Amino acid sequence: MDATNHQVRLAARPVGLPKDSDWEHTAEPVRDPGEGEILVKTLYLSLDPAMRGWMNEGRSYIEPVGLGDVFRAAGVGTVLASRHDGFSEGDAVTGIFGAQEYATVPGGGAQKVDTSLAPLPVYLGALGISGLTAYFGLLDVGQAKEGDTVVVSGAAGSVGSVTGQIARIKGCRAVGIAGGEEKCAWLVDELGFDAAIDYKAEDIRKALWRAAPDGIDVFFDNVGGDVLDAALAALARHARVVICGAISQYNADGPMRGPSNYMSLLVNRARMEGFVVFDYASRYGEAARELAGWLASGELKAREHLVEGGVSAFPDALLKLFAGENVGKLVLKVAEE
Amino acid sequence: MDATNHQVRLAARPVGLPKDSDWEHTAEPVRDPGEGEILVKTLYLSLDPAMRGWMNEGRSYIEPVGLGDVFRAAGVGTVLASRHDGFSEGDAVTGIFGAQEYATVPGGGAQKVDTSLAPLPVYLGALGISGLTAYFGLLDVGQAKEGDTVVVSGAAGSVGSVTGQIARIKGCRAVGIAGGEEKCAWLVDELGFDAAIDYKAEDIRKALWRAAPDGIDVFFDNVGGDVLDAALAALARHARVVICGAISQYNADGPMRGPSNYMSLLVNRARMEGFVVFDYASRYGEAARELAGWLASGELKAREHLVEGGVSAFPDALLKLFAGENVGKLVLKVAEE
Repeated sequence: MDATNHQVRLAARPVGLPKDSDWEHTAEPVRDPGEGEILVKTLYLSLDPAMRGWMNEGRSYIEPVGLGDVFRAAGVGTVLASRHDGFSEGDAVTGIFGAQEYATVPGGGAQKVDTSLAPLPVYLGALGISGLTAYFGLLDVGQAKEGDTVVVSGAAGSVGSVTGQIARIKGCRAVGIAGGEEKCAWLVDELGFDAAIDYKAEDIRKALWRAAPDGIDVFFDNVGGDVLDAALAALARHARVVICGAISQYNADGPMRGPSNYMSLLVNRARMEGFVVFDYASRYGEAARELAGWLASGELKAREHLVEGGVSAFPDALLKLFAGENVGKLVLKVAEE
Repeated sequence: MDATNHQVRLAARPVGLPKDSDWEHTAEPVRDPGEGEILVKTLYLSLDPAMRGWMNEGRSYIEPVGLGDVFRAAGVGTVLASRHDGFSEGDAVTGIFGAQEYATVPGGGAQKVDTSLAPLPVYLGALGISGLTAYFGLLDVGQAKEGDTVVVSGAAGSVGSVTGQIARIKGCRAVGIAGGEEKCAWLVDELGFDAAIDYKAEDIRKALWRAAPDGIDVFFDNVGGDVLDAALAALARHARVVICGAISQYNADGPMRGPSNYMSLLVNRARMEGFVVFDYASRYGEAARELAGWLASGELKAREHLVEGGVSAFPDALLKLFAGENVGKLVLKVAEE
């Protein structure tokens, strides 16, 4: 195919917030698929807080992105050419396509998606890794059950907004912590959360005692820092604290801040547990079916925050996450459908 | 009975390390037992790091000791008079007798102990709450199993020394962290730990990689602070971090220091869990029988660090814990047997 593939690569390991010089913009010819490969035109790319961690050197739950490599990102797109039996031209697919306009990948690295069920960007959010993360984190790690009080931080984000809705669907009291009046109103008025706490305007501790007077049974944390400490101070007996992320700490240029209230785990016979959604790959199907069912019935609402500008806008779009500018899943539109 | 009962009471809530003016020494006549009560002459009193927490105001796993109250402490002693069917004069008993020479308590608050099985002070250590804490913390909360690498901090203390020995008995690799050459030698040479790390002389992180090259499966923490952070950095996949105490932090006059490496819980799909041994009261019998069996067979060794001086030495004896002066269970001798 005679086209140019514009790409965004990691040029340097950032200190603090990523800056322009940490990125490199490149262009190269599109590569035709070899045997077993498909060529995908990327339409949307996912932007995730975890990406900040992938920019760092060192041991983590996944290899860091190498310097000079196209930045790792999940995408959805259309198959332009296929040399894999499972895919045909025109198929809508999702996979780790990277921050580039075209991806030539093994067929095994892509999954077909059903555009009759939901628009493409939803497969990066509620029906993608964000939704699966919420599902397994809340129900499997957090063991949320009917009657529990579930508090989620980063509640207006892609994972948090689904987490609170699953909690509600499962008969829990769902309380969200988010920054700003608009986000909080959205959680309660549109998504059906029982309460929302605006951490920018309220004393989180006082607000938690009001919103969760019997204590928190499950705290699903995407944020860390002050928010985690406040939640630890408000745990119920035998609470489960699910560590999904720590967006408040990812851009710290010193050591991360640990939860100084961690002895609340002893006082309340509680546990704090981390997880990585990839470990649940063998159960994605089961979760995706349940999420799709809730979406179809209207019990679960998906919202994407679309950023325009093509692939070259990837670095600026990522910063929106750390500025808390997104409501719902932050998605970069790479090309017209 | 015509005798004087010397007592140690809490006079003020300490800031930092307890000082003389935080205590009050009182004397009052011994009270004869009423219906259902027994009068106990205290022979030994337990000294525990957790006592520092009981001196603070505020919500915890147990009520704080009230200002002016005889300080809460477990003891062993002899029944001098009984108006309870379950006890006779001369019985050896244990219970929460408080920092005083004589205790008049309901019979339900005391348990008889078998002096043919072990000397009295052992019932405050390996066969008392310390041993039970080690047992349930390691096996129930920590889920230690054969082949696991178990690392315990405060390893030369009453709980830590039993924890490491149970780990060894259960077929785990037992690694202790303690302060000083003498303690470390005792752990390896006398108690059979596989390795010991002297946190005062070694870089804990490097030493942990050497002593636990495949990572830590169970970290049993009595210490907190740097030691907890170092252990978090060395976890194996699906590790269990058991929060039993945080002796390094109890006398801090600012907020406690949280574990800045807590995101290792996510990277390693690990969990950190607190517990309170009192929750296992219904299973004390089962654990005590197993501990007594190991003690009888010589697989488990009990060591007490006896402090002389009578009940008035209680405040000074407590400080030995925070100075790390004890090897084994710290016990105050109150009177001759």
